[in-house]
Amino acid sequence: MYKPCDTRAVPDLVALCKELELTWHRDIPLAAAMSIGVAGYDGATLTVRAPLPPNRNLHGTAFAGSLFSTCVLTGWGAVWLALRARGLDGVIVVADSTIHYRKAVAVELVCRCTPDAEALRAGLDQFATARRASFDLACAIEHAEQRAVIFTGKYVVHAHS
Amino acid sequence: MYKPCDTRAVPDLVALCKELELTWHRDIPLAAAMSIGVAGYDGATLTVRAPLPPNRNLHGTAFAGSLFSTCVLTGWGAVWLALRARGLDGVIVVADSTIHYRKAVAVELVCRCTPDAEALRAGLDQFATARRASFDLACAIEHAEQRAVIFTGKYVVHAHS
Repeated sequence: MYKPCDTRAVPDLVALCKELELTWHRDIPLAAAMSIGVAGYDGATLTVRAPLPPNRNLHGTAFAGSLFSTCVLTGWGAVWLALRARGLDGVIVVADSTIHYRKAVAVELVCRCTPDAEALRAGLDQFATARRASFDLACAIEHAEQRAVIFTGKYVVHAHS
Repeated sequence: MYKPCDTRAVPDLVALCKELELTWHRDIPLAAAMSIGVAGYDGATLTVRAPLPPNRNLHGTAFAGSLFSTCVLTGWGAVWLALRARGLDGVIVVADSTIHYRKAVAVELVCRCTPDAEALRAGLDQFATARRASFDLACAIEHAEQRAVIFTGKYVVHAHS
């Protein structure tokens, strides 16, 4: 027998991505200066882009601070989207991070973050009950099909006070 | 017998700091967007400042990417100044870095870097002969007399090609 799909519980990922980008541009002046944008989100991988011109350094390649900021926002956005897709809301802060610059990036900055699905689910469950959780995420910026920048960050989420 | 001090070989640190700040603002758009500036340099410690408003996040405190960018530029500047004070010039890039966010920064960002004098001298000697050297530096941003942000970075210097 035909059973209709109830779409009321399915979050609108496109609308969430627009809200994420709006939040960055409205509330973080440096994100606006970088012209950072959400390029895609399929519920697992978040892809973020930033054009080279406002993010260049004195060698004409991407500035280390822009590469870091793109990564740290991508990880933050991946947690924000995962929370919102579950109907949760919290304060997300980065606690520690490490970045390896392996190759110069001479094109548009494209950063991807795919949180481990099992760890993400466990963290969201913990946040839903304990109102606090942490997430260890990895983000990467590729250039010419190589990982040019590798970032890892620990994000802590706590309930709004 | 009186022997006059030959000041021709003494670099003008104030002029070097102005050149450093001009380089950042002219060649790194994000540094200009951050309104970053050199607050002081005594030949050992470089102090860099950035006002909070262009560097805030959605919680009204300093954006993680601005804190990182301030640190990475302070370390870069400390190497640049040490090279120039020795009459040397090279391409400085950051290879790896780690940052710990211990406290939120709700005021002007003030970052300090004091390279280890012995390691700095050894690195400059190596660069002068081998045309390549690396420097491990630590930078810190204090808030309310506590270290709010601790950054370590590995910088590689090579001769202009």
